Amino acid sequence: MHRPAASPLPGLASADETLTGLAWGVTFPEPFEAAGVHCGIKHKRPDLAVIHSPVDCSAAAVLTRNRVKAAPLRVTQEHLLAAPGRIRAIVVNSGNANACTGPRGMADARAMAEVCAGELGVDPEQVLVASTGVIGVPLPMERVRAGIQQACQRLSRAGGPDAAIAIMTTDRRPKALAFTLGLGDGRVVRVGGMAKGSGMIHPDMATMLAFLTTDAPVEPRHLQRLLREVTERTFNMITVDGDTSTNDMAILLASGQAGGEPLAPGTEDFARLQAGIERLASYLAKEIARDGEGATRLVEVRVTGARTQAEARTCARAIAGSNLVKTAIHGADPNWGRIAAAAGYSGVEMDPDGFSVWLGDVPVAAGGQEVPFDEAAARSALTAPEVRLTIDLGTGGRHEAIAWTCDMSEEYVRINASYRS
Amino acid sequence: MHRPAASPLPGLASADETLTGLAWGVTFPEPFEAAGVHCGIKHKRPDLAVIHSPVDCSAAAVLTRNRVKAAPLRVTQEHLLAAPGRIRAIVVNSGNANACTGPRGMADARAMAEVCAGELGVDPEQVLVASTGVIGVPLPMERVRAGIQQACQRLSRAGGPDAAIAIMTTDRRPKALAFTLGLGDGRVVRVGGMAKGSGMIHPDMATMLAFLTTDAPVEPRHLQRLLREVTERTFNMITVDGDTSTNDMAILLASGQAGGEPLAPGTEDFARLQAGIERLASYLAKEIARDGEGATRLVEVRVTGARTQAEARTCARAIAGSNLVKTAIHGADPNWGRIAAAAGYSGVEMDPDGFSVWLGDVPVAAGGQEVPFDEAAARSALTAPEVRLTIDLGTGGRHEAIAWTCDMSEEYVRINASYRS
Repeated sequence: MHRPAASPLPGLASADETLTGLAWGVTFPEPFEAAGVHCGIKHKRPDLAVIHSPVDCSAAAVLTRNRVKAAPLRVTQEHLLAAPGRIRAIVVNSGNANACTGPRGMADARAMAEVCAGELGVDPEQVLVASTGVIGVPLPMERVRAGIQQACQRLSRAGGPDAAIAIMTTDRRPKALAFTLGLGDGRVVRVGGMAKGSGMIHPDMATMLAFLTTDAPVEPRHLQRLLREVTERTFNMITVDGDTSTNDMAILLASGQAGGEPLAPGTEDFARLQAGIERLASYLAKEIARDGEGATRLVEVRVTGARTQAEARTCARAIAGSNLVKTAIHGADPNWGRIAAAAGYSGVEMDPDGFSVWLGDVPVAAGGQEVPFDEAAARSALTAPEVRLTIDLGTGGRHEAIAWTCDMSEEYVRINASYRS
Repeated sequence: MHRPAASPLPGLASADETLTGLAWGVTFPEPFEAAGVHCGIKHKRPDLAVIHSPVDCSAAAVLTRNRVKAAPLRVTQEHLLAAPGRIRAIVVNSGNANACTGPRGMADARAMAEVCAGELGVDPEQVLVASTGVIGVPLPMERVRAGIQQACQRLSRAGGPDAAIAIMTTDRRPKALAFTLGLGDGRVVRVGGMAKGSGMIHPDMATMLAFLTTDAPVEPRHLQRLLREVTERTFNMITVDGDTSTNDMAILLASGQAGGEPLAPGTEDFARLQAGIERLASYLAKEIARDGEGATRLVEVRVTGARTQAEARTCARAIAGSNLVKTAIHGADPNWGRIAAAAGYSGVEMDPDGFSVWLGDVPVAAGGQEVPFDEAAARSALTAPEVRLTIDLGTGGRHEAIAWTCDMSEEYVRINASYRS
């Protein structure tokens, strides 16, 4: 059975105070608690996490659009439909995706929710399930069951960092952030989150595992719209390798523990909350790109001068997804033609004789052709820890979008040539 | 002025005799002649080729769908519209794409046709132009002019191999093939071709430079349909890195020198010619994939059980384009889940609980999940010089398609991190 939270609350309540890195993460908003343990899916590293709320939460989720959806996603979908306003926990394992595992995989995903629910004294449908790791291999359920029991015993208000570490696969760093938001009526709400990358990352849906929490009161249907909109501008705008996973999901839980009336769309306070969640998701999305497999730097691709918002997004994602752009950045090669070529094949409207390109702040092409530029300055822009590429499509349109990716190194190939081995 | 062909015709006229590799290539069909020279765009290697026919040819072309079309493609399009049945030559340079070069680039591409036409005593509109190499840098036109003059002086019936070498960029090997086809009426026609890869290769149009010739008599409009259909099953089914070039084109010239009535669609002989051109294009397409940047082996992806032909093609190209599939093959890692995931995100109909996967002849998944398999046999299938992957989508549909790619190695990154440097 569940042991009550033992750790003291962090001493933070002032508006807009930020806790970066591992400080709390998903457990910063009240009354969330979490734990991360090693159950033996992986050889040595932590591989199982539980996030828990002692009170019912509104829940929202954005799931992969891959036709091959892993078993935990299907179970999570069922449980969200059954109990969208009564979610109590998320159980997550790393090291095994429980994807392409047939009826046994479905039974295993259901069992994960059941074991967790039993430990916490709630209904199985109040527990969401996520998995990440190798595809096509059944879960070692005896270890997983024991791990869930152990994690539920260890749940604590300070468990956010352990949970963030336990969901990592080839990530080099855990990814977490938390901060407070002051609302117009004097209320202070908290948001927190954690995520993992770092291969098989590509837009077109929630593109990895991300778990976000808040103590703000929000109805499930409003929470769902909020998460969907935020995802479109954050998690769906990153790419590491163009491969869309079978297991991608982002989940947002709202406990309502900050008190007061539920926040409703159209109000200023709802907009503040949405902006806060977007800031959180944006941070995590960039951290995933920065920590992409083999990455040595974060790349921000800005597309301006697009006819529509959708075209700006499509184009930014095509450039961010180009192996040739990513390898040129790795080599600090100011080969701006690859950026133009990627924009060209993205299918959006552009003026081949009117586009412009910047590497960092260095203009390298205008009117569709090269302009004289300082090669050293351009190379320097490409070796910055955060590389900025900008292309104006020259259509006269005013829409723009930003996508994030990383450079592509030999290390990416080395990691992925022997992932299972 | 043009010097008449000096080399003897090759002593081959029997039906269905094949000349692989560099033997003749584009100059095997009569009366094509060619030359390849070094004009100084590249530091040392040959970089300029001319293919010439002393008689007017029917011509067809398939060009990139990239919105950023290089100047030579625009000029080639103009000339094909102006003189589809009177084409005499193709002038090609490597080392510089003449793309994103503005009005000067257009003038340079026109000048290439003009200089070549002057040397050969024909109209500029009878000359097609192609370029491949770095984007955004103006051509060194003084060298290019001299090179075209030199190449036109050296044209010969034995010049096919030199031309095939002169169009290479990061290709490790020249790619050429030629053979004879016996028609029903006793006529023997010849086909020949050459191509270059080997990065920025991705389906969705002619995906590289390919030049095909035949001495069969065919009207331009029929030739165009033939080339379009062949391209859909060959050059558009290969991918090296997912990047679609600004300069991709495939050109087919028919001299009619084999004599007799023009071949017309709907006849058995036309079908034989089309099958022969497809065999030629298929060989060249596979050679491009096999010689992809950093490639150590050719990968053939077969998709079966698709609802439609279009879905089979889309799915095969998605799998062939997956970095994760390509790196797993490089590492001989039987990680079949990546194949399933790529099929899943390709957007085509598949049964997540009904698909099957084979690595070579080894079944590794059925009914959407792993089946027991011999790991050593699977690894062995992945280290063959020609790796075959098969996925049946399990929809009950009967359509299938094949795509070709290569494995992805650290060398791919090394090549592309310093392409301009």
